[in-house]
Amino acid sequence: MQERSDRMRRSGKTIVFVPTMGFLHEGHLSLIREGRKLGDDLVVSIFVNPTQFAPGEDFESYPQDLDRDIALIRKEKADLIFFPNQKELYSTGFQTCVSQEKLPKHLCGLSRPTFFKGVTTIVVKLFNIVKPHIAIFGKKDYQQLVIIRRMVKDLNLDIKIIGGQTVRESDGLAMSSRNSYLTPEQRPVALALFNALNKAKALLADGINDAAKIIAASSELIKSHGNTVIDYITICDPETLEDMKIIDRPALMALAVNVGKARLIDNMLLNPK
Amino acid sequence: MQERSDRMRRSGKTIVFVPTMGFLHEGHLSLIREGRKLGDDLVVSIFVNPTQFAPGEDFESYPQDLDRDIALIRKEKADLIFFPNQKELYSTGFQTCVSQEKLPKHLCGLSRPTFFKGVTTIVVKLFNIVKPHIAIFGKKDYQQLVIIRRMVKDLNLDIKIIGGQTVRESDGLAMSSRNSYLTPEQRPVALALFNALNKAKALLADGINDAAKIIAASSELIKSHGNTVIDYITICDPETLEDMKIIDRPALMALAVNVGKARLIDNMLLNPK
Repeated sequence: MQERSDRMRRSGKTIVFVPTMGFLHEGHLSLIREGRKLGDDLVVSIFVNPTQFAPGEDFESYPQDLDRDIALIRKEKADLIFFPNQKELYSTGFQTCVSQEKLPKHLCGLSRPTFFKGVTTIVVKLFNIVKPHIAIFGKKDYQQLVIIRRMVKDLNLDIKIIGGQTVRESDGLAMSSRNSYLTPEQRPVALALFNALNKAKALLADGINDAAKIIAASSELIKSHGNTVIDYITICDPETLEDMKIIDRPALMALAVNVGKARLIDNMLLNPK
Repeated sequence: MQERSDRMRRSGKTIVFVPTMGFLHEGHLSLIREGRKLGDDLVVSIFVNPTQFAPGEDFESYPQDLDRDIALIRKEKADLIFFPNQKELYSTGFQTCVSQEKLPKHLCGLSRPTFFKGVTTIVVKLFNIVKPHIAIFGKKDYQQLVIIRRMVKDLNLDIKIIGGQTVRESDGLAMSSRNSYLTPEQRPVALALFNALNKAKALLADGINDAAKIIAASSELIKSHGNTVIDYITICDPETLEDMKIIDRPALMALAVNVGKARLIDNMLLNPK
């Protein structure tokens, strides 16, 4: 893979990389389409990375459908699908990791304290193998995007990071491979996340800029549905992810809610008038 | 710098990189000469990396002589001397690090617990900036070499790591920028490290393969000199750095001794008959 990337680079091609964990949905496909436009050599990887799952999380049951993924990626005319092998990526004696001090201590990092260490480590590994000029990550995983941008800057990785828009179902549910965990009864409940974000947006438009009040209203809305357990609802600085009390500048509202066995996340940028 | 490296790579040149903290001695120069033979584009960096010094260590007083260094590197016909800027490498909000779980918990890592985290982080940064095909590190800093080899493997860095032989003064003292801290009275005492290693080698040749006995004899030899404080003397596996009790296969003997205000290190591979 590295030899191929060197060859591409020597021949002047721009390598665009879309890393995924497979079980692709329209969100992934929109990143792949964006990638197709940005470079001559489009590489899509599929790898369910064990080190970003904690014991008890859904690593073993994470949904997979390789044949379908391959067909979908081929349709988008990617140049290469890269399936690294778990044993090759994490060989005997593996012990090096890439981690961050502050950004993983917010949002999803609070209930998943080892998650982002797993993400930054695998992303550096994949970057070193694929050697892209450009890499694309979805904005649905907003914290991941912020963390990767920071990592690229801090480690002087010569890679341009592009954030791809969240793709939603027709009713507004953010697309996620984990939506497949939802039962038919839970599916309408899952919309509570998007509704809570819109509620926040509406309150801000009405002149309410007190983050605590907005969070309380959104929280109430989510709790009014059965079968939901809120992990967090936060309004924070979009770069540092530190809590904001008053929305006097652009803010990120982000939330994680368990609906049945699906842990769902969503976010929205809130812009005060 | 990254644009230059891309250009070199596109034109088919092999980039060889020798990272240093400056105040060059014959040890560094032998690495630079080795580098000159291995590639078409030889880059030598000079950067005293603050994050690998703990508070109270010698970061502020680390010896420097930039003009002399430049003259020495020019004489070896390096293609480029790279002096990164501290503020540029560690900008506001910097928070990403590369670390290892086990290897830094041995030898120098015991008394310098944050040292290798600083080393692995700066080396990844420099690798990402210089984009070398080959990088050279001295065997005098044996643990550093083992850690960097492990890091390169674990993070899939596409870089060949070469270990350069330790260069010694005529009496056997391993060359080190920190030898400049030695007073004329301390200079002969500093030879205790090399003598202790040779003592170990002689004992092993005499059929003594009990690590504890060899360490005790070497330790006694060092203590017989005034002005010495032993940090550690270890006989360990050359790859995992884990203690060996019986030298029944090739072993690394490594030691760190404070002579006056100079913390000196040295090591030797011990091969049983």
